[in-house]
Amino acid sequence: MLFKVLVVTLNVKLVARDAVGRILKVKFGDKKLVTPTFFPVINPHKLVIEPREIKKKFKWNDIITNSYILWKSKHREDVEKLGLHRFLNFDGIVFTDSGAYQIWRYGDVEVSNKEIVEFQKKIGSDIATFLDIPMPHTISKKEAERGVRVTLERAEECAKLMDDRRLWVATVQGSVHTELVVECAKNLATLPFTYYASGSLKIATDEWRFKEQIDYLINSKINVPKDKPFHFWGLGHPATFALFVAMGVDSFDSASYVLYAEDDRYMTIEGTLRLEELEEFPCHCPVCSSYTPDELRKMEKDERVRLLAEHNLWVILSEIRRIRNAIKNGYLWELVQQRIRAHPRLLEAFTYALKKYPDYFDEFTPLTKKSAFFYSGPESELRPEVRRAKEMVKRVSAERYFYKKPFGKVPLGLRYVFPFGQSMVPDEEDVKDEPEEMEQVLQTIQFLFGRNATKYLRDLSVERSKNTGMIRKVFSKGKLIGVIRPEDGFFLPNVRGASLIKKGLEQGSCRVVISDEAVEPVSKGRSVFSKFVLEIDRNLKPYQEVIVVDKRDDVIAVGKLLLAPSEVKDFKHHVVVKVRHGKFSKT
Amino acid sequence: MLFKVLVVTLNVKLVARDAVGRILKVKFGDKKLVTPTFFPVINPHKLVIEPREIKKKFKWNDIITNSYILWKSKHREDVEKLGLHRFLNFDGIVFTDSGAYQIWRYGDVEVSNKEIVEFQKKIGSDIATFLDIPMPHTISKKEAERGVRVTLERAEECAKLMDDRRLWVATVQGSVHTELVVECAKNLATLPFTYYASGSLKIATDEWRFKEQIDYLINSKINVPKDKPFHFWGLGHPATFALFVAMGVDSFDSASYVLYAEDDRYMTIEGTLRLEELEEFPCHCPVCSSYTPDELRKMEKDERVRLLAEHNLWVILSEIRRIRNAIKNGYLWELVQQRIRAHPRLLEAFTYALKKYPDYFDEFTPLTKKSAFFYSGPESELRPEVRRAKEMVKRVSAERYFYKKPFGKVPLGLRYVFPFGQSMVPDEEDVKDEPEEMEQVLQTIQFLFGRNATKYLRDLSVERSKNTGMIRKVFSKGKLIGVIRPEDGFFLPNVRGASLIKKGLEQGSCRVVISDEAVEPVSKGRSVFSKFVLEIDRNLKPYQEVIVVDKRDDVIAVGKLLLAPSEVKDFKHHVVVKVRHGKFSKT
Repeated sequence: MLFKVLVVTLNVKLVARDAVGRILKVKFGDKKLVTPTFFPVINPHKLVIEPREIKKKFKWNDIITNSYILWKSKHREDVEKLGLHRFLNFDGIVFTDSGAYQIWRYGDVEVSNKEIVEFQKKIGSDIATFLDIPMPHTISKKEAERGVRVTLERAEECAKLMDDRRLWVATVQGSVHTELVVECAKNLATLPFTYYASGSLKIATDEWRFKEQIDYLINSKINVPKDKPFHFWGLGHPATFALFVAMGVDSFDSASYVLYAEDDRYMTIEGTLRLEELEEFPCHCPVCSSYTPDELRKMEKDERVRLLAEHNLWVILSEIRRIRNAIKNGYLWELVQQRIRAHPRLLEAFTYALKKYPDYFDEFTPLTKKSAFFYSGPESELRPEVRRAKEMVKRVSAERYFYKKPFGKVPLGLRYVFPFGQSMVPDEEDVKDEPEEMEQVLQTIQFLFGRNATKYLRDLSVERSKNTGMIRKVFSKGKLIGVIRPEDGFFLPNVRGASLIKKGLEQGSCRVVISDEAVEPVSKGRSVFSKFVLEIDRNLKPYQEVIVVDKRDDVIAVGKLLLAPSEVKDFKHHVVVKVRHGKFSKT
Repeated sequence: MLFKVLVVTLNVKLVARDAVGRILKVKFGDKKLVTPTFFPVINPHKLVIEPREIKKKFKWNDIITNSYILWKSKHREDVEKLGLHRFLNFDGIVFTDSGAYQIWRYGDVEVSNKEIVEFQKKIGSDIATFLDIPMPHTISKKEAERGVRVTLERAEECAKLMDDRRLWVATVQGSVHTELVVECAKNLATLPFTYYASGSLKIATDEWRFKEQIDYLINSKINVPKDKPFHFWGLGHPATFALFVAMGVDSFDSASYVLYAEDDRYMTIEGTLRLEELEEFPCHCPVCSSYTPDELRKMEKDERVRLLAEHNLWVILSEIRRIRNAIKNGYLWELVQQRIRAHPRLLEAFTYALKKYPDYFDEFTPLTKKSAFFYSGPESELRPEVRRAKEMVKRVSAERYFYKKPFGKVPLGLRYVFPFGQSMVPDEEDVKDEPEEMEQVLQTIQFLFGRNATKYLRDLSVERSKNTGMIRKVFSKGKLIGVIRPEDGFFLPNVRGASLIKKGLEQGSCRVVISDEAVEPVSKGRSVFSKFVLEIDRNLKPYQEVIVVDKRDDVIAVGKLLLAPSEVKDFKHHVVVKVRHGKFSKT
């Protein structure tokens, strides 16, 4: 490509993760976006809930409106003069759609790609998007090809016009034609967009048939840069959000809260109810704790729609907040397992996704988490924790086992190790046998680092917690080589322990190799940043304990891996390893 | 028994039902109790939330306090003078415990059974209870026997003192010793109590191990009068309520909302969170939409506890309201399927209960419901709808079938009949074949009334809906014999149709036999009340269409059965059949 391309280094921090979901903090200009988030659609012609109310009453910072509607409206000059934020009276983050939705609905728009891109810059959108070509799920391959071609041309045109004062969204197109989706995503990935997206298919939003949707979403997602937030257009029911966040979606937008309200539909996480069927509100939002269904029914339509829209928005935003909490505290899969019972098609979608894309879920799901593994049915057996645990126990040399559903035969020494020791399954039998000390220590190390990891560990001894009686410290020849973390039973080696473990491992295994300039700070306990990573063991999982070495394979530090190996390249200025213990750490 | 017993006819109306759950409206004195309900425990010495606030802010009418604590307190005279309601400043329903809880916790109390019964009368409790002997789940059979004996003695003593100005609760004891539970329940059932109960076992509340709990509960419940509300002492987490309502519990009480708050625990339906782990509240109750977690953490303890208790109470009360809505709209099983994913032990409890007591669930679960059957995992196959449908299809004579998970091979004529036509299952294949007219009509009638029900139907024809194209009216020899209800595809015969159907049936089948004095009003379309029911087919299910006949087996009317056959005896003044069409109805 022959045009000048803006090189944007996105200031993004991955704060926490669970499943493929994550909390991102993205800074741009003087704004800070936190995902997962939801952008309520504001129709500038009909403010059912005022943007300033969204800020004040709902304490919510993110909205979306349609730049094309503004461009076409009689207020266009006002918006240009005042800027979007003053026009809407909202100082948070304003995302603007481009008119692509109108193409999708009405087939055409009266604005050019360039015009709408420039317009969004002019009015000061925080997140802007070019005029891509949305597609129905019934589109022929030929038509879809044409749409993808136009989308890519417009993306290139947009790339030439982009600035770094806002985030720029590129939406992957291709609909149900996976090879087109992949091609489109790969091409968009070469351009300096700072936000990627895919769209919801009508079959998914209207009929909750999600299989094609999942193919489209995941094939988009895996082919665009991993450090950029990923938006999912037009999914409006909060019962679906946890599932889609677990599949890698960072943000949603919808007018559903208003559209449902206009139709007297009352959202709940458990499913949609109709106002007419309600005798009392099964909710305690500011609306539902102040009014009765009867009072609402007797109101003028406008007032009723406003109140129902407020209720619906409360339900949506609480769910987003709940999802963030679930990611932070390691219960996103468990939340999803609950949410997918709101509708059998969600359970179907979950099962489909995990069966079809097991490696995708394995790649990003952390190796350990703060909350226990909850079994909720056969679908739980598809979770990466289960597949992985079944694989990883093969590394362990053991003589005694216990049986633990759904993991199968587990070496007894792993009794207190995640997920075996932190899982809850119906009708389980108590494990009677206690592991012996060395059984536990050696098997835990083998489970985490490989069978040969214990080969050079000599004269081991342990120290137990006075409170719990559990093993806390592990020594070799009387010297500390690491500790057992009570929460998940993981062995966290110190540098001495890592050096002994490493001796037994294959070249590169469990290692992050850093460049020489990083050796000194890292050896003192500073974090390993991505730009100093030369190599990384591709089999590592997020939140795994890793051995940081220099080019000569000398152990510099040990710590917790924050990124999936495949993410290191994209997250250019990000912590890769949070170091626990450096070679020259003071402790 | 040689004492005079008050005969209390409880004014109770079963308004709606789903699973074994039900909405009861109970009138006594000038009070009206609506179940399912929850009684928040008010500690009279420490009003974390004032009773009047519970009325005003939470719009809640039911509370519970401890009469023994009041009896022992320095306020005893005040309470006696003012009465409980003025003392507490609450004009709703005040339930009082007797001190049994203190026996359970501390082994003994300083009050006699008679004293505490009289005291509750004196202070004007709305729901009063005698001093039964609660038992831990670890109790020996011998000790339990002793406890049951004392409980029964005290129950008899209480029965002599009871009045009809309040409801009187009898709690079944016996703990894990089922034969004692049964004996205790059967004995209590002979006494004129108006409210029955069983208690939560510590193993259930503390460890969520519910198997023993379910045995205790169901064996209590099936041996006490069916028209009386049934209370379940001391279960405090709202995630468990839907399950226990579906198992037949009408009311709960707990101080959990305060106890959790005192420990900085934040209730959610998805599980309990700790205040310290929250960055933002995943809730929109009046507390959570006004404060941030940080603000709460910085508060004085008393203020924080009050606000957390308010949040917890909102969560609890919304869940009760949700459960009521689920019963009314036929999605209680579906709600339970979601709630039991909050913890694997709830899923375990569900599975245990449905496997162990299938007839119990079959007896009371309605034959049809307003909402679709949602499949949520293997546990759904244990639901009465599935077992029943599998049995009932055997009555149908068919040549063509379709396959429908989890029901198996289904006659094609039942394609639009509940549950086959109103069920949603993951990965289902579309049914291609359309039933023929007669296939649908005949098979539907056989499915609902038995194979021989169609034996005397001649020259059938149908009329279809102009809007939907679906069969609406069914004629025999040109005369209307019934309609197909669009919602569930059920055939609702008129009197002519019922007479033809009945001819083919065995003696008594699908029939409710009424006494002569009721024949005239019922033939004109009035409801059938229980006192006029002479016999009823024991195989009928609630919400089934039934044939009302006189002693000579002449068809008087047809209508919807509201009670399970086993309930008719207990609900002494209740509608048994809501008549749709009487012999002399005008339409």
